[in-house]
Amino acid sequence: MSWNTFGRVLRMTTWGESHGPALGAIIDGCPPGLLLTEADIQPFLDARRPGQNKFTTQRQEPDAVRVLSGTFEGRTTGTPISLMIENVDQRSKDYAEVANAYRPGHADYAYDAKYGFRDYRGGGRSSARETAARVAAGAVARLVIPEVRIHAYVVEIGGDAIDREHFDADAIDANPFWCPDRAAAGRWAAAVDAARRDGSSLGAVVECVAYGVPAGWGAPIYGKLDADLAAAMMGINAVKAVEIGDGFAAARVTGEQNADPMQPGPQGPVFGANHAGGIAGGISTGQPVVVRVGFKPTSSILTPVDTIDREGNAAEIRTRGRHDPCVGIRGAPVVAAMMALVLADQKLLHRAQCGGAEIAP
Amino acid sequence: MSWNTFGRVLRMTTWGESHGPALGAIIDGCPPGLLLTEADIQPFLDARRPGQNKFTTQRQEPDAVRVLSGTFEGRTTGTPISLMIENVDQRSKDYAEVANAYRPGHADYAYDAKYGFRDYRGGGRSSARETAARVAAGAVARLVIPEVRIHAYVVEIGGDAIDREHFDADAIDANPFWCPDRAAAGRWAAAVDAARRDGSSLGAVVECVAYGVPAGWGAPIYGKLDADLAAAMMGINAVKAVEIGDGFAAARVTGEQNADPMQPGPQGPVFGANHAGGIAGGISTGQPVVVRVGFKPTSSILTPVDTIDREGNAAEIRTRGRHDPCVGIRGAPVVAAMMALVLADQKLLHRAQCGGAEIAP
Amino acid sequence: MSWNTFGRVLRMTTWGESHGPALGAIIDGCPPGLLLTEADIQPFLDARRPGQNKFTTQRQEPDAVRVLSGTFEGRTTGTPISLMIENVDQRSKDYAEVANAYRPGHADYAYDAKYGFRDYRGGGRSSARETAARVAAGAVARLVIPEVRIHAYVVEIGGDAIDREHFDADAIDANPFWCPDRAAAGRWAAAVDAARRDGSSLGAVVECVAYGVPAGWGAPIYGKLDADLAAAMMGINAVKAVEIGDGFAAARVTGEQNADPMQPGPQGPVFGANHAGGIAGGISTGQPVVVRVGFKPTSSILTPVDTIDREGNAAEIRTRGRHDPCVGIRGAPVVAAMMALVLADQKLLHRAQCGGAEIAP
Amino acid sequence: MSWNTFGRVLRMTTWGESHGPALGAIIDGCPPGLLLTEADIQPFLDARRPGQNKFTTQRQEPDAVRVLSGTFEGRTTGTPISLMIENVDQRSKDYAEVANAYRPGHADYAYDAKYGFRDYRGGGRSSARETAARVAAGAVARLVIPEVRIHAYVVEIGGDAIDREHFDADAIDANPFWCPDRAAAGRWAAAVDAARRDGSSLGAVVECVAYGVPAGWGAPIYGKLDADLAAAMMGINAVKAVEIGDGFAAARVTGEQNADPMQPGPQGPVFGANHAGGIAGGISTGQPVVVRVGFKPTSSILTPVDTIDREGNAAEIRTRGRHDPCVGIRGAPVVAAMMALVLADQKLLHRAQCGGAEIAP
Repeated sequence: MSWNTFGRVLRMTTWGESHGPALGAIIDGCPPGLLLTEADIQPFLDARRPGQNKFTTQRQEPDAVRVLSGTFEGRTTGTPISLMIENVDQRSKDYAEVANAYRPGHADYAYDAKYGFRDYRGGGRSSARETAARVAAGAVARLVIPEVRIHAYVVEIGGDAIDREHFDADAIDANPFWCPDRAAAGRWAAAVDAARRDGSSLGAVVECVAYGVPAGWGAPIYGKLDADLAAAMMGINAVKAVEIGDGFAAARVTGEQNADPMQPGPQGPVFGANHAGGIAGGISTGQPVVVRVGFKPTSSILTPVDTIDREGNAAEIRTRGRHDPCVGIRGAPVVAAMMALVLADQKLLHRAQCGGAEIAP
Repeated sequence: MSWNTFGRVLRMTTWGESHGPALGAIIDGCPPGLLLTEADIQPFLDARRPGQNKFTTQRQEPDAVRVLSGTFEGRTTGTPISLMIENVDQRSKDYAEVANAYRPGHADYAYDAKYGFRDYRGGGRSSARETAARVAAGAVARLVIPEVRIHAYVVEIGGDAIDREHFDADAIDANPFWCPDRAAAGRWAAAVDAARRDGSSLGAVVECVAYGVPAGWGAPIYGKLDADLAAAMMGINAVKAVEIGDGFAAARVTGEQNADPMQPGPQGPVFGANHAGGIAGGISTGQPVVVRVGFKPTSSILTPVDTIDREGNAAEIRTRGRHDPCVGIRGAPVVAAMMALVLADQKLLHRAQCGGAEIAP
Repeated sequence: MSWNTFGRVLRMTTWGESHGPALGAIIDGCPPGLLLTEADIQPFLDARRPGQNKFTTQRQEPDAVRVLSGTFEGRTTGTPISLMIENVDQRSKDYAEVANAYRPGHADYAYDAKYGFRDYRGGGRSSARETAARVAAGAVARLVIPEVRIHAYVVEIGGDAIDREHFDADAIDANPFWCPDRAAAGRWAAAVDAARRDGSSLGAVVECVAYGVPAGWGAPIYGKLDADLAAAMMGINAVKAVEIGDGFAAARVTGEQNADPMQPGPQGPVFGANHAGGIAGGISTGQPVVVRVGFKPTSSILTPVDTIDREGNAAEIRTRGRHDPCVGIRGAPVVAAMMALVLADQKLLHRAQCGGAEIAP
Repeated sequence: MSWNTFGRVLRMTTWGESHGPALGAIIDGCPPGLLLTEADIQPFLDARRPGQNKFTTQRQEPDAVRVLSGTFEGRTTGTPISLMIENVDQRSKDYAEVANAYRPGHADYAYDAKYGFRDYRGGGRSSARETAARVAAGAVARLVIPEVRIHAYVVEIGGDAIDREHFDADAIDANPFWCPDRAAAGRWAAAVDAARRDGSSLGAVVECVAYGVPAGWGAPIYGKLDADLAAAMMGINAVKAVEIGDGFAAARVTGEQNADPMQPGPQGPVFGANHAGGIAGGISTGQPVVVRVGFKPTSSILTPVDTIDREGNAAEIRTRGRHDPCVGIRGAPVVAAMMALVLADQKLLHRAQCGGAEIAP
């Protein structure tokens, strides 16, 4: 993928800074005739929206999306879909301190090293606020893959994992952590609140499963479905790790332990396990596609950290502003959006190459 | 990246099947004037070459590379560099059984589901043999980044990890496992040999570090350096997991524990830690770039596994052929090649956008 | 180029319909540090703006551009630059008739055939109004190539060509036809006014010359500078022909007549002619880059034309609405913008591959 | 398109120099299951092959193509198709003179200016010999569009045009000029032979028509079918001009004269004319797609021309070697191949976005 564009056939281009007037996404290559209004997008933005409870940043953004092009009488026309979200609650004065000194773990120093200077207000382009555009675009991508259901949820915060025995899909939307284990959600509430009060932060692991993906999506060799997912997830702010299916655990077992045996079934093979996470050779197998994503703890903490300023002098910084104590929580809707974007793109790509009987003799 | 092409500015396109007459790579966008002959590429292919000891597949391939275009009088001309490696030791009869039944964990079923049929000889295009082309292309990419040194080594086989206290860079090339811990290499020899004799297989974790990457490489938002690395690594055969820096471990700690403090240094900042693995906001920070890659155990095992045949009937399969008992071992040179390709591409991409004073007023 | 994105390294993505709320462009890959405000863009939009005299459509659009992202304190940051232009003067009722019947020569039928339906208001996405976004993006591209001066002017309307003997560069901005020959401008005024009054239309030829392009820009084989220009120009609404240098005239002469001899000069070669239009082998030679572009007459005419309606029945249509009697006139600023976009992209591409001494040994 | 790759979904990457060991093409994204052997490609190469009569260069190249990957049991597998053609008749000594001095009109000076040096043997990568790879790839592209018939023929040599009244499609293959007018073919034989004997050269115009293209192919705005054709044709060696349908002639008439009226027909609209050349708004209309391409006279002539050498000193050059006296003649098969590649790519692209009912609700 290239700079600010993601995808090959269904392509999203995003723009906008944390403290600019607005941000947005262009979705190009979307099939025509799909029903689409702002109401199809807004719920996904609302799920990602900040300021909804004490476990996320207190920045208040309505994140109201406008569809500026690409639809006519409520349907997609096949032309580029322009989505715009205005920024409302900007407090640029919060960032006076970081204008000069680099926040360790943030993109501050790297952006200056690359571009020579940077828009320091709220992290500028490197702010997680950009992910609102991805979530909006992901809502459009979902329309392209109506056969697929995507679940994203948090399975671990600060090293405290859910109990898989108590996995309850209905719990996911019933707590502010997208947690499928009610007991874990309770423990996390205490832990995240403590981190917030201390000005500290916690890492998290998000899992995402796509049900209904048929066998055959994925474009080997350098556009494999798992490679696309890896890029999509690693490109989310604060993500440092991605695994498919059993992931690193598969690296620790034998071939016998990692086998996914197949048996005949009424609608294609029935698999005896899903260690592979629904992908073999870079192509979907018809099993659920499973990806797990590791988010580092938010780098913005109140504890002073040694750093340098723009002139290279020693400095010390503690990040005030308004931040998520655990950025992985609000990462879950972003992970789901990227899953939708990857799958929709691969579906159309598959259709391009293998899409019909009209060529074969 | 798109299908069989990897990269944006420095772009590699590979072709070829396991049992076809040859395989190869085209490298496009390479800067002109670089010294390049077959001798610059062959050592990297030799490192990946099969059949060199009992711990890898016994297929005997000289993997002799020819440079068919793109150089003149020993230098790159800026035109496409065509590399070709002939296949020599093909035993297609080994694959009679797999022509009909799907090997679980292999790409067999997925390829059939996607394309309608497949070249089953040795896995066809999905064979790890394709990675020879990547290694050859990676050797060219290294010429583009002479300032960078890349080390790739195995840190874990079958769940048995190296002892970081005994890390010895000189040991890496001195054992058949690219293992930096001599004691672990000894244990692995026994374990891999046992797996080989039993017709079993083992997973592995490869670590790769690039030294000398300056701050500023990486193209946010959807061409981040870490996202590129994730795609590059996840696209290698048998890889199921990728992490940058501390990776999943970072998801289990607090912001204080994960901080990489900076202090002034004579040539830019000196970092107090490298939890980030040398990348922030998708851009290199000047620290070593660190990636870790999880390889599943080879799916080809002698233990019979339930499967189905092309007609959908129940079947049982045990994979004979010649296979690596631990495909991660030979993965190390491939990981290094992909690191080189990603870095070289990002270097040129950075030069395109930020490459000189001749634009700025 | 792909769908709604143009360029490789400096990439423009445009969006918007003739009668939607707005239209815009995202410019990605722009070097950082360039001075950029709305004031750098607006004059180019003003030159293309409709409704300025009786020779163009009477639609009144202020075409006021807003920069929504990608700059900070008046300079480009290296992140995507989002430009937006609101539509103001829409009279969708003008288009009731064309909702059902296809206007011959317009994109109406083709869009329906492709997408199944279309936004018929003002031509929707196929409207020449989209070129406002290109002109805005072109203004940004010009900042990337300060060494280049671009002149675009009309050399022929309705078969009446300028007299090259009377070419006067100062005349170009002094008449509503961008005509470098004052006498021809007078004749054209009469002809275009007559066509306007009759509800007829006229074709035109635009010539564009870029001075100051150094030798070496262009990316053979499939990204040649002339191939890029051909695509850029042919993609402009109503364009049916493109030629470089002498173009079709070169096809009618001998090699001796078409030679561009070279002699030594103080700053590189001095050429005895420029039949080649400044490009050889797809690469600039240092001479002025010359392209000529043929615009068909506007298809919207008052004379009734046989057509069919959406149900396939015979119909007759005469296009009312507000239209340019000679769309080629307002095409000149668009041709100039596309020239700037192509050159800026090729400059950065050249810099990526051949941009410095830091690689070569 | 990017450097040495052409196409978006069906993508061709070519490599090779005039005097290297071989040249070739990789075709990626080809649908699986198509019948393909060398015998499907060779006839197209034979049509382009040099040395077949006195009107083309006397270089003797068998141009025998090998399919090195991407097929299995005579069918395409969906993986990259690698085609290779070995160079046989190289006389590098012919080029000793041009190693130092630049041939005006050739790419010599531009390549040196771009890359710092060049492979001067036979023009290296800039040689028209590269088009053999395009012709081979075009033969594969034709398999993707079995519904389309492509005719390419020469309509003008040295300013002497065919008489459209005497157009005879059966004549095209019956003379060495691909000329549809037997009388013109006779005149051209004399003119080209005279040019050959004099060491001079002549320009030519090639016309190409694709029958059977359905309405709906083309990807507005920056991947329009006509824009793709313009890039494809302008990128062919020696081409300086491209027009669609009436092209420049359309710029000289009124809207009434240029109208293509539509009437109801049994299988879609029946058009009363085809001034548009089968494309409106960048999308095919169902009419024949018509493109005309202007080739300059070969720059290699025996008449001495002023030039400079690599050190910038004045020199004089007359090009010996073996050259086509009218390169446009052998351009016809290349034009046809590029037409096939563009149409096949756009067909698959259309299928990706608009390819089926399975998405729309």
